[in-house]
Amino acid sequence: MQHFLGIEELTAEDLESLLGAAAEIKRNLPSAAPPVPSGRILVNLFFESSTRTRVSFEIAARRLGHEVVNWTTQGTSHEKGETLLDTTATLAAMGPAVIVLRHPAAGAPWLLASRSERGPAEPGGYAVVNAGDGAHEHPSQALLDALTLREQLGTLRGKTIAIVGDLAHSRVARSNLFCLTKLGATVRLCGPAGLRPVGLESLGPPGTVSVHASLEEAIEGVDAVMGLRIQRERLDGGGFIGEAQYRRRYGLTRERLSRLPPHAVVMHPGPLNRGVELTPELADGPRSVILGQVENGIPIRMAILERVMQR
Amino acid sequence: MQHFLGIEELTAEDLESLLGAAAEIKRNLPSAAPPVPSGRILVNLFFESSTRTRVSFEIAARRLGHEVVNWTTQGTSHEKGETLLDTTATLAAMGPAVIVLRHPAAGAPWLLASRSERGPAEPGGYAVVNAGDGAHEHPSQALLDALTLREQLGTLRGKTIAIVGDLAHSRVARSNLFCLTKLGATVRLCGPAGLRPVGLESLGPPGTVSVHASLEEAIEGVDAVMGLRIQRERLDGGGFIGEAQYRRRYGLTRERLSRLPPHAVVMHPGPLNRGVELTPELADGPRSVILGQVENGIPIRMAILERVMQR
Amino acid sequence: MQHFLGIEELTAEDLESLLGAAAEIKRNLPSAAPPVPSGRILVNLFFESSTRTRVSFEIAARRLGHEVVNWTTQGTSHEKGETLLDTTATLAAMGPAVIVLRHPAAGAPWLLASRSERGPAEPGGYAVVNAGDGAHEHPSQALLDALTLREQLGTLRGKTIAIVGDLAHSRVARSNLFCLTKLGATVRLCGPAGLRPVGLESLGPPGTVSVHASLEEAIEGVDAVMGLRIQRERLDGGGFIGEAQYRRRYGLTRERLSRLPPHAVVMHPGPLNRGVELTPELADGPRSVILGQVENGIPIRMAILERVMQR
Repeated sequence: MQHFLGIEELTAEDLESLLGAAAEIKRNLPSAAPPVPSGRILVNLFFESSTRTRVSFEIAARRLGHEVVNWTTQGTSHEKGETLLDTTATLAAMGPAVIVLRHPAAGAPWLLASRSERGPAEPGGYAVVNAGDGAHEHPSQALLDALTLREQLGTLRGKTIAIVGDLAHSRVARSNLFCLTKLGATVRLCGPAGLRPVGLESLGPPGTVSVHASLEEAIEGVDAVMGLRIQRERLDGGGFIGEAQYRRRYGLTRERLSRLPPHAVVMHPGPLNRGVELTPELADGPRSVILGQVENGIPIRMAILERVMQR
Repeated sequence: MQHFLGIEELTAEDLESLLGAAAEIKRNLPSAAPPVPSGRILVNLFFESSTRTRVSFEIAARRLGHEVVNWTTQGTSHEKGETLLDTTATLAAMGPAVIVLRHPAAGAPWLLASRSERGPAEPGGYAVVNAGDGAHEHPSQALLDALTLREQLGTLRGKTIAIVGDLAHSRVARSNLFCLTKLGATVRLCGPAGLRPVGLESLGPPGTVSVHASLEEAIEGVDAVMGLRIQRERLDGGGFIGEAQYRRRYGLTRERLSRLPPHAVVMHPGPLNRGVELTPELADGPRSVILGQVENGIPIRMAILERVMQR
Repeated sequence: MQHFLGIEELTAEDLESLLGAAAEIKRNLPSAAPPVPSGRILVNLFFESSTRTRVSFEIAARRLGHEVVNWTTQGTSHEKGETLLDTTATLAAMGPAVIVLRHPAAGAPWLLASRSERGPAEPGGYAVVNAGDGAHEHPSQALLDALTLREQLGTLRGKTIAIVGDLAHSRVARSNLFCLTKLGATVRLCGPAGLRPVGLESLGPPGTVSVHASLEEAIEGVDAVMGLRIQRERLDGGGFIGEAQYRRRYGLTRERLSRLPPHAVVMHPGPLNRGVELTPELADGPRSVILGQVENGIPIRMAILERVMQR
């Protein structure tokens, strides 16, 4: 694997292999010896701010002995009018082994990867890791969600996962849809009309994805419910529904989830709008695996970095 | 010591032990070998900007071989509405050994520490270090001030220290008051009426703290004078006194300090408003130990980190 | 060499020695073993934002095994009114081996260096490296440009280099003028009247520097053309020439450079305003060595750091 760009282009075997490697890393983390410096440099190139994702990659890289350099667009030449390709070509010329890219434009990591002819082990080569591109993919998030679900449910094969919220703008929803269906699960998507584009069913193999307007219908008997982050300005903008109505119709509460099987869990990629997507009671309650998701971000990203660095 | 939260809850023995460890570290610093990587991660979690404190902790941690990750609230999910507890729970789930917290709310480090059941040596455990919470405590500053005073005065027992300025909003004043009186010194507090809350005497054991409106009275015969940073907007706001009047009545000058004993020193936690709290002549003159305070920040913070990492 | 401040004060031998060291470092980089931690700390103290220069020094330092701490003025005590000298004295008291300073005031690095009596190998000592001071010097940029030119042209002795653009505000132009003439090259300066101060010829030895209003005249037969970054607001401000007219008269295009000798190269310090200083066709074409300049920034800065750390 030269780059780690999107879940859509990976096979079930790729995903299983990464999940297995991450689970192994996680088992060994408590007893792991301090890493030996690798002399390799990972650059976090973030054109959008996301401290949690940036720090998760930073910690993962340092646990592997790599050096980390942070390059954010605040106060940089990007603001001075430099293009994405000039910024990244400049950065690549400085010799990093890995560029972790967060960018508001869908496809930016592929564009960057297309410029790299060589892998990170070769002089001048580097790997690109997608840390979220526009409303397109957030593949490391989907993998850490899958790791969390496998820990909770044993397997994803035959399971049903509901994803609730802003389906129109969520790269988390898209990457999870690809990941969960490739791993054998069925996905139910649910959200308000204005945030529920047509054609979402076609993103998975036939019969694996369904779309629902009703939350009750969507979560009936599922093994897990994943709330998506809502940006409040979208509710009163294109969402055709105000915040109060969103809470009433789509807000996840303990009561609404009370009829789920006892093993069913609640997830959220964070950061939470407490009381909007989820009640605090649910977020902090026994069904919540939200902090487990965050914890799994470290071994998942370590597994991704090890994979792209091998080549 | 699982956490390092406030001076108020430490004993004189705790303080002596930390000061002794820091003095030992300082003696060995020039000849210290490069640190061996520890594999442990310290996160600077700063909800207020303070480059000098952040960098001091960063350098201290790196001199001990730890990795440092900076998490500031600028452009983070905190700004997106996430709560302190959600941000810190997220961060803690990523496995740092130490969280150094600067927060505008008094008590925030205790709240964070109450969530950590385990110490930094245990899987999933972390230590909390208070790098300043609201107008409450700034305990590492008080310790580095005490180290500086002991170097200058030999001991704090029986000495008298005047603290001058904005007593109402100063965590530096509070932590120093606790620290100095526990170490056997007497403290005289002095500041304008609007910045001098009632009841300050009761923060120390009976007879150890006095409060003064007159600077001349406060500094008469003291062994050290500590100027506090004044935020200019407070002078014309609740301070009941303009900047010009503040300089006239409370500004420290060489002339005003001319009758102090020859060994008496001048301190300031920085950053300085030159010409307001202190004249440049005094700040750069022979009585000033201001840069010695900064220098002592490194061994003090190394001693603190070693202490909380032991557990 | 205790500090690295400006090209103007270095001899041709100093420059040759640094270029030779950098070339040697570059040859060995692909096979270099991971660095051994040095226990030394480099601080990037940036009073202006420049991610590319900051990251280049950061990567250079890490490749040498040093720790890197970033101190930028955004949200720091400098904004709270602290002076340059107080900020740097504070920083120096924390014990860094090297302070890399970017500052908007010409001469700031010399002021800082004048406060350091000791070299980085001595307790309390530190070296100052100028990463750009006002419109004065940007010496590491000039060295990396010289390394790039030597790779392309074999030697600088007897070569002619045209520098085109905003001569009035460019520290890159000044440092290059000093560096190129010391290394035996002739420099032709070219730019619009409002951005072309009188007396530039006198910055080099007699006969080594000429100033031209006409681009055609300036680039006739040269071995290299260096475009300078234009700040657009300056064109319509003091530049006496609008952006459209600038492109027409001074914009570098493939056609305009078509009569240059085949070996002649095009350079730019970045970030590029594509279509203003250079056409994209030229920037990405075979004559462009722009990414080579960036790449050479790492070995040049490693050589500089090794030199100032020796003392």
